[in-house]
Amino acid sequence: MYKVKVYVTLRESVLDPQGSAVKSALHSMAYNEVQDVRIGKYMELTIEKSDRDLDEAVREMCEKLLANTVIEDYRYEVQEVVTK
Amino acid sequence: MYKVKVYVTLRESVLDPQGSAVKSALHSMAYNEVQDVRIGKYMELTIEKSDRDLDEAVREMCEKLLANTVIEDYRYEVQEVVTK
Repeated sequence: MYKVKVYVTLRESVLDPQGSAVKSALHSMAYNEVQDVRIGKYMELTIEKSDRDLDEAVREMCEKLLANTVIEDYRYEVQEVVTK
Repeated sequence: MYKVKVYVTLRESVLDPQGSAVKSALHSMAYNEVQDVRIGKYMELTIEKSDRDLDEAVREMCEKLLANTVIEDYRYEVQEVVTK
């Protein structure tokens, strides 16, 4: 079994209105030291071993569904989970 | 300057309808090896050095705004960014 952690973030060149809103909220709460906020998605996938290449499968899942590659970047980390 | 990476995830005990929807979509795309999907938020904060304790400030920001601690857990990682 594998635990795959996927991080999807907006590209640097893309405006992040959600991030700006959170930044303004933090400033209104007197956290003026916050210079920038970027918000993305964090996904944890539990994937069973199969004959398919895991990296290839995860890349496909990201490119087809989990990330909008026009405006988002993605990266992922794979951990093997030892099931008792 | 610090780069703080915040991960906000639903507690294990909380149902994740978004995650279930993504799992069904992945199954309909023939990725049946996917056993579970949990979706959360990933935030990157850029924070200037200040006289306030960074850990304390980040914990407060998470508890007051970035996470709903009734149904969500949060964790964060701090990286010092060397500005030229």
